[in-house]
Amino acid sequence: MSDTVHISAIQFSCSTDPAVNLARAIELTRSAAKEGAKIVCLPELFLTRYFCQTEDPGNYALAEAVPGPTSKIFEALSAELGVSIVLSLFEKRTEGLYHNTACVVDPIKGYMGKYRKMHIPDDPLFMEKYYFAPGDLGVQIFETQGVKLAVLICWDQWFPEAARIAALKGAQVICYPTAIGWQLYEKESHGAAQYGAWETIQRSHAVANNCFVVAVNRTGFEPTSEAHSHPNGIQFWGQTFIAGPDGAIIKQASETEEGVVSAHIRLKAIPEQRHGWPFLRDRRTDVYGDLTKTYLDD
Amino acid sequence: MSDTVHISAIQFSCSTDPAVNLARAIELTRSAAKEGAKIVCLPELFLTRYFCQTEDPGNYALAEAVPGPTSKIFEALSAELGVSIVLSLFEKRTEGLYHNTACVVDPIKGYMGKYRKMHIPDDPLFMEKYYFAPGDLGVQIFETQGVKLAVLICWDQWFPEAARIAALKGAQVICYPTAIGWQLYEKESHGAAQYGAWETIQRSHAVANNCFVVAVNRTGFEPTSEAHSHPNGIQFWGQTFIAGPDGAIIKQASETEEGVVSAHIRLKAIPEQRHGWPFLRDRRTDVYGDLTKTYLDD
Repeated sequence: MSDTVHISAIQFSCSTDPAVNLARAIELTRSAAKEGAKIVCLPELFLTRYFCQTEDPGNYALAEAVPGPTSKIFEALSAELGVSIVLSLFEKRTEGLYHNTACVVDPIKGYMGKYRKMHIPDDPLFMEKYYFAPGDLGVQIFETQGVKLAVLICWDQWFPEAARIAALKGAQVICYPTAIGWQLYEKESHGAAQYGAWETIQRSHAVANNCFVVAVNRTGFEPTSEAHSHPNGIQFWGQTFIAGPDGAIIKQASETEEGVVSAHIRLKAIPEQRHGWPFLRDRRTDVYGDLTKTYLDD
Repeated sequence: MSDTVHISAIQFSCSTDPAVNLARAIELTRSAAKEGAKIVCLPELFLTRYFCQTEDPGNYALAEAVPGPTSKIFEALSAELGVSIVLSLFEKRTEGLYHNTACVVDPIKGYMGKYRKMHIPDDPLFMEKYYFAPGDLGVQIFETQGVKLAVLICWDQWFPEAARIAALKGAQVICYPTAIGWQLYEKESHGAAQYGAWETIQRSHAVANNCFVVAVNRTGFEPTSEAHSHPNGIQFWGQTFIAGPDGAIIKQASETEEGVVSAHIRLKAIPEQRHGWPFLRDRRTDVYGDLTKTYLDD
């Protein structure tokens, strides 16, 4: 069996029509498969515009069961194309209980299970604590296409703890479906610094854990739907990338480009890296109990 | 009281004569103080060549008590110049028990205490497990010059856990005295990737924790002292840098430059950054117990 896996991330801008977004995701997954992809990662909540810009109870209607209608569509597509697909969905668990969830479908194993976003943001235009209960499944590993794959979601990417737990569970690839961008009025003042921090933290998970990292973002401008005294919105910054276990970026999309970002990842690069700098050997688990505290002021 | 603190890192190449290195460290600390520095950080084990390239019991003679003769010299210098100094020393605790230790001296408070390197590397030319017992003091915070300063040491920098614990203890600045470089035969093949990983991981601690990070490395080439079939040695890669709480590099030295790397750091940048992206609010301490395990295979 080959040590190399062809992995693809899909970057596109989301329309206001879920049917259009679904068709676009299917079309681009087909393109990736045609090029030889074995694993395809779709961006966060790609079926809809990023509705968390405002708090609107009407948006709960966008949620669905996982597994459910959309996962079934991709399960069939996965079987047809022979690719595994990472799918980010707005999960309805019951009335009044929703999650930001990702599932994996495999051409042979079908629906493999799901991960529920653990770290939930809440800041202007990213009001996710209103919509999503924090995930209660911990970090999940999906064994697909000969790869141990962890899926974490967007805000999770700022927490080295989540990536480390994934690595301790054996992850070789960590995939981050993401919806991140600049607020309309912040791009000029904060744009470069925000993007730089985002790229740095995800590359650092690759460095610290010697895993591959796939960061899949959407692109395009989405205006805030409610009337505001000043019009606002998010310019999603695209720049979907795949990084190797040394943290170097292997492949990256531009800010605006739509399409497939692919890399042939060589899994043996993981032990090669770990044999050079064996970090896992030297962790001080005897003092890491402090990490289970919110703050060490007491 | 000003919100801005002038902090300096000292980069130089170490000679085979400890007296020369001591004089150089004092001279460069004086230069930094003359320019207005309030905190000066010296590189790892600057009194000597990096003796851990080989395992030689004769090197234990280089160790000293902390506090001890060298810390007393810098305590006096600190009082004279009005600067606080981060000092990396080879600590003798008793016969057969040595640590890689850093202490802080303050112009008013004098000797403030020490930190013992917790994560100990051991790979070819960096055979530290032979010399240093793992630190038993946990992460230490030193309140000096109006700054909460954590000192971690070199290999510690690859572990996001250590930086996080420092931040949870209130660190505003994390200083990493370091001795890292390329093996003679690896620079061409691995040099850029190794340096890139090093810079990325430290900038990521600034991003994840919204702290300032000071990475202080030595420069120069040091041959392996023992006879080998092939001559070897370490080209220390310098590039000492200071990063802000968004992970951006504020100031950086070149690979070979010797001297003082300074920045006026604005402590209010920490809450500004944390109010934009409040990561500490959203940590999932309920699942981080997994971090106290060596590996999650059972």
